[in-house]
Parts: sequence; structure tokens; C-alpha cells
Amino acid sequence: MKLTDLYLFLKSDIERIEEELEIAVQANHPVLQEASLHLLQAGGKRIRPVFVLLSAKFGNYDIERIKHIAVALELIHMASLVHDDVIDNADLRRGKKTIKAQWDNRVAMYTGDYIFAKAIERAAYFKNEDIHRVISNAMYEMCSGEIEQIRDQYNWHQNLKTYLRRIKRKTALLIAVSCQLGAISAGASLTDQTRLFYYGYNVGMSYQIIDDILDFTGSEKELGKPAGDDLLQGNITLPALYAMCHNTEDKNIISETLKKNKTEIDMVPLLNIVKQSGGIEYSKELSKKYLNKAFESLEGLSDISAKKSLRDIAKYIGSRSS
Amino acid sequence: MKLTDLYLFLKSDIERIEEELEIAVQANHPVLQEASLHLLQAGGKRIRPVFVLLSAKFGNYDIERIKHIAVALELIHMASLVHDDVIDNADLRRGKKTIKAQWDNRVAMYTGDYIFAKAIERAAYFKNEDIHRVISNAMYEMCSGEIEQIRDQYNWHQNLKTYLRRIKRKTALLIAVSCQLGAISAGASLTDQTRLFYYGYNVGMSYQIIDDILDFTGSEKELGKPAGDDLLQGNITLPALYAMCHNTEDKNIISETLKKNKTEIDMVPLLNIVKQSGGIEYSKELSKKYLNKAFESLEGLSDISAKKSLRDIAKYIGSRSS
Repeated sequence: MKLTDLYLFLKSDIERIEEELEIAVQANHPVLQEASLHLLQAGGKRIRPVFVLLSAKFGNYDIERIKHIAVALELIHMASLVHDDVIDNADLRRGKKTIKAQWDNRVAMYTGDYIFAKAIERAAYFKNEDIHRVISNAMYEMCSGEIEQIRDQYNWHQNLKTYLRRIKRKTALLIAVSCQLGAISAGASLTDQTRLFYYGYNVGMSYQIIDDILDFTGSEKELGKPAGDDLLQGNITLPALYAMCHNTEDKNIISETLKKNKTEIDMVPLLNIVKQSGGIEYSKELSKKYLNKAFESLEGLSDISAKKSLRDIAKYIGSRSS
Repeated sequence: MKLTDLYLFLKSDIERIEEELEIAVQANHPVLQEASLHLLQAGGKRIRPVFVLLSAKFGNYDIERIKHIAVALELIHMASLVHDDVIDNADLRRGKKTIKAQWDNRVAMYTGDYIFAKAIERAAYFKNEDIHRVISNAMYEMCSGEIEQIRDQYNWHQNLKTYLRRIKRKTALLIAVSCQLGAISAGASLTDQTRLFYYGYNVGMSYQIIDDILDFTGSEKELGKPAGDDLLQGNITLPALYAMCHNTEDKNIISETLKKNKTEIDMVPLLNIVKQSGGIEYSKELSKKYLNKAFESLEGLSDISAKKSLRDIAKYIGSRSS
């Protein structure tokens, strides 16, 4: 089962968004052009546009109107990835070289700025004040999340609350907003807007927690980068956080190891510590809780095929970690 | 005569904005905190907030309301400077080390992102759809201007039109928008909003052209960096553009010289070529034309002290190049 099988009826509209994205990142400058296309072709699931389109089905679905929202949100997402790779010092994403690795930090900075500007341009199409406020707030929260991630790197005094806030800002909010804005731009009822927002939020939280689990349990082939890379970069995600909170000795081993030069660090012992701590199981439980809340959020929505797709996507996300 | 003498009656309100700016850039992260404060203390004339406040005087002046606009615009300006310094590879600004020089490109990228996010946060305070659209558009145009600047570096086939569009996006638009948003947020008449927008646009164009002249005619002490630095970085401003368009031989000398390693380039012969070409005089004439248009734009406005200040500021800007 592929993710795209879950919303086959959107196929032509998704292709439409893909074309719009290609037009949006066209730049009259060789390096910028190449970098933007590189990023676009590196792919990604375009899951934010999918959530926009599915949510718009609960109102008056007009692809000509909602495409701008879908494109704006995917561009914000893309821009944030490019800058995140600079912050995380990441050379690979989805098995492909990142822009900062293929070119340098400077090119990554201005490519991100450029794509961000294109997102703002799209957002300015709308006259609806709610849409502006929601997008502005999402952009603010995402930038803040980026900054929080820097602040929290190699910070051994984090807790569950700071972790959850970080992944909310980093991932869940933009998915929540994708659902909400799809609903708003199609004129869905306020109740349905709220339901879809919470669906997106919970799915996003669950998704990110699972991503953080996979960073410990996945193979290099599946991940497109070595396992444990988040921790190696000083990003303390839930499984590691759990391990460190429950055993002071483990905490010291992890924090001492990560003080070394990165090239000298053997991650295998650290991966084992995390796996044996129960942190993976704890994280799986928490991701399941969010997923259940996502299913609950859908309950009052009318029974159209988009609802089934949203449910299937949530199930699919849950199945990734098992 | 100091610039600040021209709007003494705003003194306490400007101090208010300064405090708000300090609060806005406070970050819970040592490097970010230090970099933001470094940037804030490097100063600048806060001319955008001044334009916001003066323009708001043509409506119902309420500092508690317009301060958000003033802070947002100054933050957008600051963020763009930080990223511009990465793009221009600039080590000094106003005689002080830039963030990318004091730290590195990565810190400059995320400091800029952070300040930009703070600007977006402020902008989101407003419920007025016009304000959102104007700010979004200004952010888009500024980012595009940044990208255009990269594209046009070492591009010897520019013309007056591309130069004017670039400085519009880089400088004039944000000043125009500062005036316009001051007027909008104070509920000034649509006619006055338009007058103030054009005043700001023309003052901004004039200001940037004079800045570009001073880069050739100023001393290292006045500029805080060596003369001819724009050209050395491959940024072809109006005086150089004029010289290159009017003498093919000069054009070849300039373009060949700039192909060399930067540390080996002697700028003195190039500065002489530009000065002897008549490019400085041509640029002065054009800046004067914009300044006159700025004065004209003020004509229909009611005769309050803010009008006198706006006129005096324009005169002051004009006097910088003589």
C-alpha cells in the first residue's frame, strides 16, 4: 500500500499543485534555479497540499482558489527544510544531498529566503483576514521552532514539555494549519474548521514522534542517513530524552560521548542505551495517543470520501512504526 | 544639524520604539541574544519608525497602536540587513563588524530568520486586511530584491531600468510602506495615504542613489568601509553603470579588473574612471529629481509640524551628497 493510493481521487489536482510549485520556484538566476529545482525534485510527499485539498472537500471545493493555499504551505515547508539543514548541519535529506552540502550555507540561506518570499507572495492573494492571520502565525511559530531547536541542541536539561512544544512548532502546527486553511478557504463551517485543525495537529504530533523513533530503529537505507543522526547532531528527541530522564548514568554516557569530535563518535552504544531504556516503547505509546485523538477529531465530520482518506492517512502514519 | 533635530517632538515616542525593539529581539539563547543585541546596538537611524510616526500624525495618532507597525518595519529592515551582509560578503557595516563576520554565515542566517519571525509576529497583531497585504507585499519585494542583487552581481549587461527596480525593492519600497502604513493605521484619508506612500518612495529612491554616490566619493572614515566597496563586491550601482554604458573601453577595464582575486584589486583606477565619466553628476541629477517629486507629493497634506519634519528630512537627505 502506498500513501498516494489513499487519495487517488485527488490525483489530477495534486499534479496541478506540482506544476504550480514548479512555476513558483522558477528563478532567473542559474544557482538559485538549480538549487530550487534540486529541492523540488528531491520530492517529498506533498502531504501538506494533500491535507489542504482533503479539508477543502468539507466546503465548496474550488481548486483554482485553494491551490494558492496548498502551494503557499508547501513552499513554507520547503523553505524551512532548507534553513533547517543549515542549522542541523545536515548533508543528506531523503538520501539526496542537501542544498547546503551541494552548494554552501550561503546558497542555502538565500534559496530558503527566495522560496519563503514566494510563499508570502501567494499568501498575499487572499483578501480574507483569517487566512493572513493563520499563515503569519504559522510562519512565526515555525521560525521560532527553528530557533528553539538551536537553543536546545546539546541542552541536557530538557523535559517532555519542551520536546512537545518544539515538535508542535516544527511539524504539527503546519499540518494543523494546512487542514484549517483548506477548510477556511472552502468556506467550511467553523466547527469543521476546528475539527480539521485538531485532526491535523494530532496527526502531526504523532507523525513527528514516529519520525523520531525511526531515527533510532531504522536502517541507513530506510532513513537515507545513518541511524542516530538526530542525537549525533545534538538534537535530543523523545526516545533519548526518556532514556536520559530515567537513568543518570546513561545520561552521563550520552552527554559525555557527544562532547567528542563528531567523526570520532561511535553511535552504536548510544543507540543500544536508548533502545534498552524503554524510550522507544514509551514514544510509541505517546504517538498512538495522538493518533487516537486524530481519529476522534474526525468524528463529527460528514461521511464523504475525504473523511475516509484522512482516516486512512492517519492509519498509514501509525503503521510506519510497527 | 543632526537628523534627529528634525523631529524633536517625537523624541519620547522614538525612545518608546527603541525599548520595544529591545524587548522584541530578546532571545533565550546565548549566541542569538548576543547577535541580536549586537545588531541593535550597531544602531542605525530608525528612520523607518520615524516615517511611520510622522505619517500617523495625519490621522488619529495613537502610539500604542502604531508602535507595532513601527517595530515590525524596523525588524524587517534589520533582518534584511543581516541576510544582505551574507550575500554581499560584508565584514563591516557602519564601521562595526557584521554578524556574519563576528560569528559566521550560519548564525547570520538564523539571527535574520529570528528577527524576521518577530516582525511577522508583530504584523499579526493587526486585524486590518490592508495592513497585512501591504506588509506581505513589502516582505516579498524585499526578498526578491535580495535575490535580484545576487543575480545581478558581476552582470555587465544591466541598464538603468534594472538598477532602479533593484533599489526600489531594496530601499524605497520599505520607506514608502512605512509612510503608507503609518497613515493607514492612524486612519488617515486614502488620498493622504497615497501622498505619503509616494513621498516615501521618492525619498527612498533619492536616498539610495545618494548612498551609491557616496560609496565612490566618501572617505573610508565616513563610510566605515573602503570607498568603492560596492563595485569591489560586484554590485554595479548607478555611477559605475553610467561609466560603463558610456565608454566601452572603461567597461572592459572595470569588468576585467573585477575578475581578479579581490585582495589583488586596486580600486583607485576604477574610482577615477567612474568619477571622470560624469556618472557622479548624472546620479546627483537623478537623485535631485526624486527629491523634487518627494516635495511635490507632500503638497496637498495639511500644514502640521509633521509635514515640516518630512520636508526637512528630505532636504537633509539631499544635502548628504553636496
